[in-house]
Amino acid sequence: MNVVELSGGVGGARMAVGLARLSTVELSVVVNVGDDEEIHGLHVSPDIDTVTYTLAGFQGPEGWGRTEESFRVNTELARFGVDNTFLLGDLDLALNIFRTSRLSAGDSLSSITEVVASAFNIVPSLRPASDDRLRTELLVNETDWIGFQDYFVIRRAQDQVNKVRFSGENSAAPAPGVVESIRRADHVVIAPSNPPLSIWPILSIEGIREAVVAHPNVTAVSPLIGGRALKGPADRVLASLGLPAGNLGVAKSYHGIINRLVIHSGDAADAALIDDVEILTFNTKIKKPNDAERLAREVLGL
Amino acid sequence: MNVVELSGGVGGARMAVGLARLSTVELSVVVNVGDDEEIHGLHVSPDIDTVTYTLAGFQGPEGWGRTEESFRVNTELARFGVDNTFLLGDLDLALNIFRTSRLSAGDSLSSITEVVASAFNIVPSLRPASDDRLRTELLVNETDWIGFQDYFVIRRAQDQVNKVRFSGENSAAPAPGVVESIRRADHVVIAPSNPPLSIWPILSIEGIREAVVAHPNVTAVSPLIGGRALKGPADRVLASLGLPAGNLGVAKSYHGIINRLVIHSGDAADAALIDDVEILTFNTKIKKPNDAERLAREVLGL
Repeated sequence: MNVVELSGGVGGARMAVGLARLSTVELSVVVNVGDDEEIHGLHVSPDIDTVTYTLAGFQGPEGWGRTEESFRVNTELARFGVDNTFLLGDLDLALNIFRTSRLSAGDSLSSITEVVASAFNIVPSLRPASDDRLRTELLVNETDWIGFQDYFVIRRAQDQVNKVRFSGENSAAPAPGVVESIRRADHVVIAPSNPPLSIWPILSIEGIREAVVAHPNVTAVSPLIGGRALKGPADRVLASLGLPAGNLGVAKSYHGIINRLVIHSGDAADAALIDDVEILTFNTKIKKPNDAERLAREVLGL
Repeated sequence: MNVVELSGGVGGARMAVGLARLSTVELSVVVNVGDDEEIHGLHVSPDIDTVTYTLAGFQGPEGWGRTEESFRVNTELARFGVDNTFLLGDLDLALNIFRTSRLSAGDSLSSITEVVASAFNIVPSLRPASDDRLRTELLVNETDWIGFQDYFVIRRAQDQVNKVRFSGENSAAPAPGVVESIRRADHVVIAPSNPPLSIWPILSIEGIREAVVAHPNVTAVSPLIGGRALKGPADRVLASLGLPAGNLGVAKSYHGIINRLVIHSGDAADAALIDDVEILTFNTKIKKPNDAERLAREVLGL
């Protein structure tokens, strides 16, 4: 069974672990690049790296970054007056230095992502949504457009988000193989990631959006439990963008895109509010790889 | 007393420590950039950094790099198939990342060098010989032209060097302040560095060479003791370039440039072979900062 997962960072990475454990599933993960940024001249791809590290079993204690990480380079950068709020670990830096030097040499982000995945012995195919520049930008406090990492890391996701846009969405092409993998898939799974900030950037790319819309079997997993995001600001962002609270807001954020929404079993009552997509209720909490595997099986109806 | 030192790496850095300790000396160090290289997309300036770290008292156990250094990033790079023979320590990487990102932002190497020196609380002024690209290249084994770091680090300085050239010598301009500092100096000291590989690149720059030639008081310190270099391949390189063995070769390598050559007290007999410059004999072994200070005082005739 061919499965494509559209993924952001931590939530998508955990879902990918579950899908990758199913022996009957051939998995392709298409990862958000709207969070990519230049930090100290290095090209960081936080979502791709979170998925890579998590599939390798090397993810950090909070889900992002590397396990057994150290921060000597990052700490030393402060000596030169550099703002080192964006925590780049030493092991993580090696990957960022490698990626940046290969990009400078003319390699594509997707070919580098493939080399890195192979260096970590990762079996599923991992693809950035696009090899081109695509950047999530947010209008905050009705005044300033700021970049994603500025919002998320530097300002700790505390601002009210009034609008989102994806710089480059009109020029960014799907990375090689992405559209084909969606067309070939038996099932498209949208991970329990932040819909506006992690999944919309993927869907903003012409070609990807059309392929997902045309697909007959698209299931999203809600990132909300009891109306709140387990991690990150998804609930607040949905609300401040004017979407309804709870899973109704998630369903509306994927209007016209999905056939099915998986919500947490404790939120079964939300189903009555949503009428345009099929609702499935499972335990969507993923604490361990076993939880992820169970949820993956349920989402795919196996 | 204004003193300008022309410096390569480890030997020049030790000499600089001695000169910087003299309270009556206002020191400017002009550092070789022929060893600069792009490593993993980062601009490394090994000689500038060796002088910086040594003046700060942070030099590594062998004279280059940082004390209390670790190599986590460098080791991890191997995972991606990267050749990590050029050892870039974690603390050293922070400086290289900072420099590269400032260069990309349009800052000059000399302005960055000044910021870095200030971050390490270094008092002498430190200047790259040039802000422009200048690269030492070597014809080895009568067959291949190779870059300095390839020769020195990757191939461990084992090849026979038949010729040297300085790529960019016709276009590289002296960094701001370099020529002025030489003109203003009471004394120009050429450090006990490798003459062809560390000092010739500085002297290859039009403007610097003329200022040094015109200066009435230029003293070179020989890097040889008993005919051998304490560190590095200076003796072998002088020989394979066709220069005489021992201090006569050093004197010839600076023909027309220096007024005075300081040789090791044990090599006093060499003085009889050299007739075009004044010879001074002192103990040129620098093991501790006190040795460096004594030698600095002797070289300046204080």
